[in-house]
Amino acid sequence: MDTELKTRTADSGQETPADCEQIVHSLARAGRKAQRVLALMSDAEKADALRAAAAAIRKAAPEILAANTKDLEAGKANGLAPAMLDRLMLDEDRLDAIAAAIENVASLPDPVGQEIDRSTAPSGLELVRRRIPIGLIGIIYESRPNVTADAAALCLRSGNAALLRGGSEAVNSNRALHAAFTEGVASKGVPAEAIQLMPTQDRAAVGAMLKAAGLVDMIVPRGGKSLVERVQNDARVPVLAHLDGICHTYIHSAADPEMAKKLALNAKMRRTGICGAMETLLLDANFPASQEVVAELLDAGCELRGDSRARSLDSRIGVASDEDWDTEYLDAVLSVAVVDGLDAALEHIASHSSGHTEAIVTADEAAAARFLAEADSAIVMHNASSQFADGGEFGLGAEIGIATGRLHARGPVALEGLTTYKWQVHGTGQARP
Amino acid sequence: MDTELKTRTADSGQETPADCEQIVHSLARAGRKAQRVLALMSDAEKADALRAAAAAIRKAAPEILAANTKDLEAGKANGLAPAMLDRLMLDEDRLDAIAAAIENVASLPDPVGQEIDRSTAPSGLELVRRRIPIGLIGIIYESRPNVTADAAALCLRSGNAALLRGGSEAVNSNRALHAAFTEGVASKGVPAEAIQLMPTQDRAAVGAMLKAAGLVDMIVPRGGKSLVERVQNDARVPVLAHLDGICHTYIHSAADPEMAKKLALNAKMRRTGICGAMETLLLDANFPASQEVVAELLDAGCELRGDSRARSLDSRIGVASDEDWDTEYLDAVLSVAVVDGLDAALEHIASHSSGHTEAIVTADEAAAARFLAEADSAIVMHNASSQFADGGEFGLGAEIGIATGRLHARGPVALEGLTTYKWQVHGTGQARP
Repeated sequence: MDTELKTRTADSGQETPADCEQIVHSLARAGRKAQRVLALMSDAEKADALRAAAAAIRKAAPEILAANTKDLEAGKANGLAPAMLDRLMLDEDRLDAIAAAIENVASLPDPVGQEIDRSTAPSGLELVRRRIPIGLIGIIYESRPNVTADAAALCLRSGNAALLRGGSEAVNSNRALHAAFTEGVASKGVPAEAIQLMPTQDRAAVGAMLKAAGLVDMIVPRGGKSLVERVQNDARVPVLAHLDGICHTYIHSAADPEMAKKLALNAKMRRTGICGAMETLLLDANFPASQEVVAELLDAGCELRGDSRARSLDSRIGVASDEDWDTEYLDAVLSVAVVDGLDAALEHIASHSSGHTEAIVTADEAAAARFLAEADSAIVMHNASSQFADGGEFGLGAEIGIATGRLHARGPVALEGLTTYKWQVHGTGQARP
Repeated sequence: MDTELKTRTADSGQETPADCEQIVHSLARAGRKAQRVLALMSDAEKADALRAAAAAIRKAAPEILAANTKDLEAGKANGLAPAMLDRLMLDEDRLDAIAAAIENVASLPDPVGQEIDRSTAPSGLELVRRRIPIGLIGIIYESRPNVTADAAALCLRSGNAALLRGGSEAVNSNRALHAAFTEGVASKGVPAEAIQLMPTQDRAAVGAMLKAAGLVDMIVPRGGKSLVERVQNDARVPVLAHLDGICHTYIHSAADPEMAKKLALNAKMRRTGICGAMETLLLDANFPASQEVVAELLDAGCELRGDSRARSLDSRIGVASDEDWDTEYLDAVLSVAVVDGLDAALEHIASHSSGHTEAIVTADEAAAARFLAEADSAIVMHNASSQFADGGEFGLGAEIGIATGRLHARGPVALEGLTTYKWQVHGTGQARP
């Protein structure tokens, strides 16, 4: 994932850092102004604008695909890895999926204006907490051009302005997608500055976004660990993100053996590269079918690295180093430990978890309840595969990312997570005694 | 308010910054460990522990008052201003109020474990979002020793550990209060490290707290603007605070004249030094009783600084400079502007508000609805005095502060605002397709 940052550095040089700061501040001010207009648009108006954006993207397919071809050619010339080129590539089907995703966001309920709760104060004041947009959201992402449209749609639907900064290798694709999106929403009265694409690829512009406290309300980094790490270290603005998905699955002594096999296999092997994939399997010393669970994983082509008790289950299991317990493999590799009961499992998780998703498999409701209460991650699951950690699977309709911070939104973040609230106070002339 | 920071600088010098960092990290690790125990304590256990803390403080009154006398003598020797000495001073009554405030927090409902919402995902997974503590909260405050007990009680009640860093001039009072508090809660099984008081007054320890991302989950600064500003500028940890309370009251053309007079007077003059006090009065050009409203304020001893149209209302009104519209006086001084209708009022507020509290006085429900929707502050009020912006007045029972950030808690923050949530997922063996 370092390629992105290297590309950025190589690409810079035209603007000075002071120029970049000026560009970012001027974009942010225009975005904030546009956001005030957007905040007052109705549910139906915003949905309409998104449908127009999807139609504009479908209509501009030839231009967008031509721009993408330019990016792909430049990428090949610059020696981009095949996996990176695949992420960058658009075709008719992928472009259609991008437009359909925007239409899906248009069909979701608008969280803005929702009442969170209502109470009456001792003075007779009536208090309502109501959802409002966060404001201007900065999105910093890597080579996938679909993020341009996804993030723009989610921000607009929730009444937020967005300042998008995509990867240099997708610059032409992003510009073409952004132009079509803007044309579509502007035809329905959304100010063009509501969704802006950073005009410069200079790396200093990213630094200026991260430091723009008071002008940018939140940053969402979308990409690999090195990008997220840089953003979290440098930002003076709140960041919504997760760094690692070191997800644990604990097979309790009272787990159903068939369910344990099925869920362990699915949690690791369905897709190994997503953040909800299991990275450590904790087998209870009193679970009778541990050998079958590890055999199922090994037979499916997964490399296992275990502690000494895990290795005694199957000779194909390699040795886990200290580092393995803190590693997000994102590959067909798994660390395995045998633990003595629920407390030991919770202790292991407390020491090594990244706060993303932990699962327990058990038929014992009391053990499940303790696990769900005590495992201190954004998502905790009982008898389910950790691969379900996803906004779409949670019924949110979409997601801007998964958050492991302890303030504000956590877990899959979609429209509601892109809003905050204010207190509305209804009085009848109360002066405070 | 600069006195606090100056005192800190003068007081430092024993520890090196590296020592301070080590002290803070070691306290934070101990606090996090204690928090895991606290997070599992029941509502009744935490309430019991707080009642024991209140009893211990009442019992230790002679020691606490003796410690406070030492602080007062040192403060006088160091030339502390009378207002600072008054904030620092404890007597039997104030100590009793501190103990009673702890008992009040004990009587409030425990937000930890509360279900926020529940849904069923397409896969059949049952999803529950449930409140959990934030973790370890750092509190940085100035000369009022009651904050030691207040903040400790709110954090403990919401399952959070606290690391307290009080002002140097209250060091003996804080130590005595903290010792009694800890003795009380420890007698009921709360780990002594759940609520820790920073053992050094070195200023570098504050810097180390602000930088301890991953060890401290949130910082709450309690004190004047210079303290809050420093914390917001230097923190690498989320900060819950407000910098200014530039609160506006807009008297709409359809306001009841009697209500307008009563609310304007109360919003400004009830107590001029609190953050919810009105700092700018916006009079609609079509409101017929503006002269009476300003006369009421002038007669009550308030200095008025107005734009040219406001000055034509009463010869006693001085000239407002550009700076006045962005000033939090915290005194019997008020800026006054005459505006042409609701849009102009909202425009003025958008340009000059600090995001704290805005109020409209009007009998026109449609105008009120627009104001409550469009004024973009943490608290917006209709027909009420902005002095009601307070956790106690909102029925929250207490408050740790008022927040104007756009993420997480906003407005008066009490127990619920000291919690976040996790997703609890209940499955029946679902593997993700």
